[in-house]
Amino acid sequence: MHYGYFNGTIAPTDQLAVGITDLSLLRGYGLFDYFLTYNGRPFQWDWYWERFQNSASRMHLPLPLGKDETYSILLNLIERSGGVDVAFRFVMTGGYSADSISIERPNLLILTESIHPVPPIQYEQGIKVILDEYVREMAEVKSTDYKRVILMAQAIKSAGASDLLYQKGGEISELSRSNFFLVKGDRLITPNRNILHGITRRTIIQLAQSDFQVDERPVLLSELYDAEEAFTTSSTKKVLPIVQIGELTIGDGNPGPKSKFLLERFDDLVKAW
Amino acid sequence: MHYGYFNGTIAPTDQLAVGITDLSLLRGYGLFDYFLTYNGRPFQWDWYWERFQNSASRMHLPLPLGKDETYSILLNLIERSGGVDVAFRFVMTGGYSADSISIERPNLLILTESIHPVPPIQYEQGIKVILDEYVREMAEVKSTDYKRVILMAQAIKSAGASDLLYQKGGEISELSRSNFFLVKGDRLITPNRNILHGITRRTIIQLAQSDFQVDERPVLLSELYDAEEAFTTSSTKKVLPIVQIGELTIGDGNPGPKSKFLLERFDDLVKAW
Repeated sequence: MHYGYFNGTIAPTDQLAVGITDLSLLRGYGLFDYFLTYNGRPFQWDWYWERFQNSASRMHLPLPLGKDETYSILLNLIERSGGVDVAFRFVMTGGYSADSISIERPNLLILTESIHPVPPIQYEQGIKVILDEYVREMAEVKSTDYKRVILMAQAIKSAGASDLLYQKGGEISELSRSNFFLVKGDRLITPNRNILHGITRRTIIQLAQSDFQVDERPVLLSELYDAEEAFTTSSTKKVLPIVQIGELTIGDGNPGPKSKFLLERFDDLVKAW
Repeated sequence: MHYGYFNGTIAPTDQLAVGITDLSLLRGYGLFDYFLTYNGRPFQWDWYWERFQNSASRMHLPLPLGKDETYSILLNLIERSGGVDVAFRFVMTGGYSADSISIERPNLLILTESIHPVPPIQYEQGIKVILDEYVREMAEVKSTDYKRVILMAQAIKSAGASDLLYQKGGEISELSRSNFFLVKGDRLITPNRNILHGITRRTIIQLAQSDFQVDERPVLLSELYDAEEAFTTSSTKKVLPIVQIGELTIGDGNPGPKSKFLLERFDDLVKAW
């Protein structure tokens, strides 16, 4: 059984419910974050908290809890999880609104969930993504706005793909819920605008420093053609090779050695977390 | 006390709650509609239902109820409202999702609310709006995505304004929750793209046919300068004069006779509804 925190109360998550005047439900006004524990400890907590705080501020939502208080809640929830690692999902909404439009006091949910690792075969074979002409509104804020990928679910499935790669006017930004990297020789190239600044992205950039030159800059679709490898990063995907983008095969169509190397570095880091 | 319908159950609205795996809460995936009753009858029900059905289809959400069944629920809720006219709010979400991303079965809420008419002084004096460079994603679908206007609430207030007028690249679309019209001589001019096709807009276009030439077409910011009158339409605003847009005064800064004429026609229609 999983437990969650909602506005001061801790309860089994299936007993948690949100009243129908919540601004996330009525107006799509909500923030979100998501991270895992390793060895019972929240991974990169300082960075996640910093980002959540920043998203809240950008959306004019006052945080009802401080960092230490929130961390105590995480520890409480971890203790109730029976010794297994969990995923934490933060959802902070505009709160209950008497007039259906004005923010009064945010609602804060902190949920524990089971971790759903990517199937090993996806690391062995790599994934296919399809291009989608789209850029997320306020991309740098982790809002709850994921309408696009839900809307495109059928198109993704029909193409035998796993996800979307967003581009606009020929410039690549990100996948629907993860960041994007290209490998060319000893260069790692990753978009730096119209993206959510992922914590796994940040971790990989840090881990790669000694072996790669990392270029954070606008990335064009045309650069896909001579890329040796491509991969995507997120808390659950870690470093997941992308071997096909639309009709284009990346490299020889198999996961490459540099993606594997970075995945190993990441796995080493979390093992010792 | 107000009553609402949620997935087959009718209960007082303050007893209704939505579980925390709902895709509107977690992912902003929801639809919305809103209309009033006059003389105890849902105003323009056929048109609202048509739009709701269309929005649902565009968002790949199967409607759990047919039109007649839904109308029976409206009559049931009206009967419980104690003989006063009410507002109906429809919210249909992506439903509860085990993996936080896939649609399974939509959740449908039908809520009754008190009507909050616009204060008479706003009709007497007209309102001020400020320009905002923005266009709603999937503007023609009445999704729950109203992040922008909530985000801009402070800017609206600071400017002493009532709302935003969206424009992009010099082309006007709509206000945050209502449509936009200009009056020049016997012409009514209203944007026809990047807008929600409002039912009050449609009603006004119909009512205006015998006295105006109605132009539905792209409208440029530059056309504001020689407009005689401007107004906005929505179910609660009806025909509400706009007398200032940013720093620009429309006409002589007072509500004009043609806006008043159309408001009277609208009031005549609803009186006899």
